[in-house]
Amino acid sequence: MSKLPAILSRLDADLDAALLRLSSWVAIPSIGTDPAFNAETRRAAEWLKDDLVTLGFDASVRETGGQPVVVAHRRKPGAPHVLFYGHYDVQPVDPLELWENDPFKPEIKEIEPGRKVITGRGACDDKGQVMTFVEALRATLAETGDLPISLTIIVEGEEESGSVSLPPFVKANAEELKADLALVCDTGMWDRETPAITSSLRGMVYQEVAITCADRDLHSGLFGGAAANPIHVLANIIAQFKDETGRILIPGFYEGVEEPTNAQKADWADLGLTEKEFLGQIGLKHSVGEKGRMLIEQIQSRPTCDVNGIWGGYTGEGTKTVIASKASAKISFRLVGKQDPQKIAAAFQQFVRERLPDDVTAEFISHGASPALAVPVDMPALQKAQGALTEEWGRKAVAIGSGGSIPIAADFKRILGIDTLFVGFGLDDDRVHSPNEKYDLSSFHKGQRSWARILQVLGA
Amino acid sequence: MSKLPAILSRLDADLDAALLRLSSWVAIPSIGTDPAFNAETRRAAEWLKDDLVTLGFDASVRETGGQPVVVAHRRKPGAPHVLFYGHYDVQPVDPLELWENDPFKPEIKEIEPGRKVITGRGACDDKGQVMTFVEALRATLAETGDLPISLTIIVEGEEESGSVSLPPFVKANAEELKADLALVCDTGMWDRETPAITSSLRGMVYQEVAITCADRDLHSGLFGGAAANPIHVLANIIAQFKDETGRILIPGFYEGVEEPTNAQKADWADLGLTEKEFLGQIGLKHSVGEKGRMLIEQIQSRPTCDVNGIWGGYTGEGTKTVIASKASAKISFRLVGKQDPQKIAAAFQQFVRERLPDDVTAEFISHGASPALAVPVDMPALQKAQGALTEEWGRKAVAIGSGGSIPIAADFKRILGIDTLFVGFGLDDDRVHSPNEKYDLSSFHKGQRSWARILQVLGA
Repeated sequence: MSKLPAILSRLDADLDAALLRLSSWVAIPSIGTDPAFNAETRRAAEWLKDDLVTLGFDASVRETGGQPVVVAHRRKPGAPHVLFYGHYDVQPVDPLELWENDPFKPEIKEIEPGRKVITGRGACDDKGQVMTFVEALRATLAETGDLPISLTIIVEGEEESGSVSLPPFVKANAEELKADLALVCDTGMWDRETPAITSSLRGMVYQEVAITCADRDLHSGLFGGAAANPIHVLANIIAQFKDETGRILIPGFYEGVEEPTNAQKADWADLGLTEKEFLGQIGLKHSVGEKGRMLIEQIQSRPTCDVNGIWGGYTGEGTKTVIASKASAKISFRLVGKQDPQKIAAAFQQFVRERLPDDVTAEFISHGASPALAVPVDMPALQKAQGALTEEWGRKAVAIGSGGSIPIAADFKRILGIDTLFVGFGLDDDRVHSPNEKYDLSSFHKGQRSWARILQVLGA
Repeated sequence: MSKLPAILSRLDADLDAALLRLSSWVAIPSIGTDPAFNAETRRAAEWLKDDLVTLGFDASVRETGGQPVVVAHRRKPGAPHVLFYGHYDVQPVDPLELWENDPFKPEIKEIEPGRKVITGRGACDDKGQVMTFVEALRATLAETGDLPISLTIIVEGEEESGSVSLPPFVKANAEELKADLALVCDTGMWDRETPAITSSLRGMVYQEVAITCADRDLHSGLFGGAAANPIHVLANIIAQFKDETGRILIPGFYEGVEEPTNAQKADWADLGLTEKEFLGQIGLKHSVGEKGRMLIEQIQSRPTCDVNGIWGGYTGEGTKTVIASKASAKISFRLVGKQDPQKIAAAFQQFVRERLPDDVTAEFISHGASPALAVPVDMPALQKAQGALTEEWGRKAVAIGSGGSIPIAADFKRILGIDTLFVGFGLDDDRVHSPNEKYDLSSFHKGQRSWARILQVLGA
């Protein structure tokens, strides 16, 4: 007889305790991208390892060239073997002054009648999402003393900085990590009522460029009118990234981008996503995406280019009449289809260099490059998970494309030869990567229940 | 019999003591533009007041709406009355890591054989320059017990932040500050051997703009491809400030700019300033000024536009895939001739607003607006000072235009009805407003001797 009803009841009863556990993990500021937080980042890894040990996992914190990786095993001979992936590092929190609550002191808030959330950096991305899975394991083990599958868990600390150390780690430990299927909980739902499985993900190229003109900062009263200004040089180059229709002008950029099928277009049209609905929630009216494409196409299946940060010269209070020596920008590209990340990184650098006067130099830092990914929609595990999600939420789980990037899935395919199933419970308004990140309690609670159901169907 | 030889000998003998005095003043970090340094800024004012009291001046530190002003008098009935102006505030020091020495622990260094300098923020601009005058007073008083002129000294603490409080202060105390002539020591020499009187100064408009797109920072994976990015909006606008010939495209910008006379052009040609000489010293090759104009014209008598600072999005280490809500820039214009600063500030704001999509907003901060200034070259005091400088340096003192701005001189003319004589000993490589500011000991020492001579001829 199925133990599922007992497992689900236990998850309902334990929600408060689960929130406390999540809260204590979110309280650890594991900003993996900033070396100043290295000790805290490691502490977040230890926290998870300790929790998995209490669940009977053979768990350890393993070294890499960068942030450590949590690896845990609980084998069940003969059962399907699943590799679960998540990350314990979180985004930086600046600008801190825009947070209504301390990002590392989670609180429960009712943001509209009947809608509660837990606040904090990582409350959703990805600590809250990872804990939906861990809580499902905890309840299943408590009720049945066992899991229906053989399970390996790998949770990294560099997802927000391009997962630099993970591919070599997976490669070096391929035998140990080998499984039949990977599960990733780092994606979103279609909306608050409609669960989703993400079946395509954009890739990413992330570049940093520093433009240098004079060999020192200059007084604009002495050199203004003659000396090249790196902020102007950089702005002129950024202004050339796109034409007035939103098309990206880096040569070869669109190589490997596929046009949608008519069926895909019809599906998109059915979803009826409008600018008013999607951009209105963030105070904007008009999409700046490529003209002649549907909004949903622009955000899910077209490649993008965004400057994520820019700085140069005097940025303090008041005035300084300086012409800076150097100006910098961080620029990322979301990739789709068969776009080649290495080629695009090289084409970008070439594009910048070709636009420099001969007494101006550019230096580049490559922060990561990963291709886009498509999951086979007819994969049996996907169809099983879709059924379980539909059961839990009372609405058909939809297969969606995601604008985000989770490069590790491409590595699992290449190194371990396995497909990845993306199930997650984030919402568009979770403010991941922004001040005031939150996770809906409905996502956290029904997410746990969803995983409890999926564990059962995967093991069946 | 002239006491001048004795005064000059005393200045030669006292150079070490004078360097110690300057050093102790430079050691006070009077960054007037940053409220965090308010106490130190006031301490620098007190330091100067105390020194002037020891010289027998009726000196005090006077309140304004902003940083205080040092005012000192030493009257000599019947003698010409001179108003000396300087400033005790200094530029911010960032980027601090580029300083070879602590900016507030001055050191004496030999930068090439026989060429010694004193290092530190304010070593030249303007503490070193002010002390050339004060040391000349000290030696004159020590040798003669008196000054040849009636003297009022006014030294402010907001020059680096646009001298906001000074004009109202001068207006409110016009009767007390009234004089026959103003002296300003905040300008430069033609080169290390050739003294100069600055006979024209550019004006300035300094604006800060903040562009806001979405009402929060966004995850580029969710909103990239659709949401407007304020860094792109700002870069696009900056890229439109100038055309490819270096001409500034803000409507009406060149109204009031006069063309040079043929005589002026011939004088410039005689000076023979080359790109190699002027830009080569800072690691550049080509002027970005208006094509078809001489380099010296570009830097001295043409108006300019420079972005002095830019910031937005993620600027820390590593990566963050954010689309920022806001991006900002500080932009300054150097003005010449009869350009109207208020009109240009308004035209700039209009230029930006016209280029904004209708769901994007811009906010402006006006940091100051002052017109350009021309000194009558046939002014008797100018010709007297020119003779004294020529005597001291053994080279004819030249009348030059300066790219910099010293707005207070226009206020002296408007409020007190007096002309200003600009004499200073700064050099192009003093790195004022940059890391590693310095002042040549030859400037400091022969500057004192120059002022001792000028005091005598102005009193004669």
